[in-house]
Amino acid sequence: MSTTDDKQTRKNAKHKASMEKQKSNVDARIEEASIERGVAILLTGNGKGKSSSAFGMVMRALGYGQKVGVVQFIKGQQLSGEEIYVREQCPQVTFYQMGTGFTWDTQDRSGDIEAAVRTWAVARPMLEDPSFDLVVLDELTYMLAYKYLPEDEVIAALANRPPEQSVVVTGRGGGAALQEIMDTVSEVKDVKHAFNAGIKARQGVDF
Amino acid sequence: MSTTDDKQTRKNAKHKASMEKQKSNVDARIEEASIERGVAILLTGNGKGKSSSAFGMVMRALGYGQKVGVVQFIKGQQLSGEEIYVREQCPQVTFYQMGTGFTWDTQDRSGDIEAAVRTWAVARPMLEDPSFDLVVLDELTYMLAYKYLPEDEVIAALANRPPEQSVVVTGRGGGAALQEIMDTVSEVKDVKHAFNAGIKARQGVDF
Repeated sequence: MSTTDDKQTRKNAKHKASMEKQKSNVDARIEEASIERGVAILLTGNGKGKSSSAFGMVMRALGYGQKVGVVQFIKGQQLSGEEIYVREQCPQVTFYQMGTGFTWDTQDRSGDIEAAVRTWAVARPMLEDPSFDLVVLDELTYMLAYKYLPEDEVIAALANRPPEQSVVVTGRGGGAALQEIMDTVSEVKDVKHAFNAGIKARQGVDF
Repeated sequence: MSTTDDKQTRKNAKHKASMEKQKSNVDARIEEASIERGVAILLTGNGKGKSSSAFGMVMRALGYGQKVGVVQFIKGQQLSGEEIYVREQCPQVTFYQMGTGFTWDTQDRSGDIEAAVRTWAVARPMLEDPSFDLVVLDELTYMLAYKYLPEDEVIAALANRPPEQSVVVTGRGGGAALQEIMDTVSEVKDVKHAFNAGIKARQGVDF
């Protein structure tokens, strides 16, 4: 056997030992996870990928033929690819969008509050309906940050949803009370963004 | 006017002034972003949401009728909702999956390397084909971390792709050279995860 072959053989053996150990760790952790119920996921932070991640989970749920509801807070003046796709290709998804644009576009606090309350009136019944397997509340956190919706009521509705239902909430911030009741919290951090290098937002990836 | 009305009026006026300022900042930044080309996005970090975010961008691109290619490295032993959905509902997406399972399942370094090379042979031509608007390379970073693929070749293929093509790479780590050539880098940090509270991975959100 050549020296090179010998080196590869040793590398392969070392790799196998390391992977056996990793597998036993992974298996032990899977064994420990025994609770079966819907999960509440918060995707927060200042980086790109929060809403797209929620829509990826919509795709995942649709793959299993699950019933999905999507309510988008804030967004709406500019059409998005995910909105077009869901509206045109996924008639089985219950979709609602606040559609008033960003707060800095409307510049109208009382109008924003009315729109938030109207949108919450669509979202809340979904959180009470066990026929929904997955409910996405896109950019809900801003409604809490701006105090457009009563935090207690939102938190209670999320916490008291049907046990088999999963929920995904997206948006920066959200507050400690929200983080507390969510099962999984991912913070998407902006390491760098194309926009800051002068590159325009791109159809198909940014909107 | 009552004191309460007065307070609301002041709050609304303050909100309007703050939003006007925010709008002028946002508008100025949009004005500055003048480069139109495809973007390279890296979704990294130890938190939940990286692959689902990539699939959300697939949905976004499909909304605009764009041509999409998806190559999944590593994953494959367990069926996923996104795989079922794309295979069954999106015949227009070119989809390929390495399908050998996680490295800790195979425990076979030379077999893993062969699978990685075979999978890269599918991905690479996509990065040379201007007809693809979006290419997703799910979990590619592990191929670099384990040195299953030559880093120089992968970096060069990403950097030299057609200018109008966007690419999304997911996975923990990836290295400094990869981060350097990507336009947008989001680090998804695990703040907390349901799994660590004993909750089983959930169909429709976790896989």
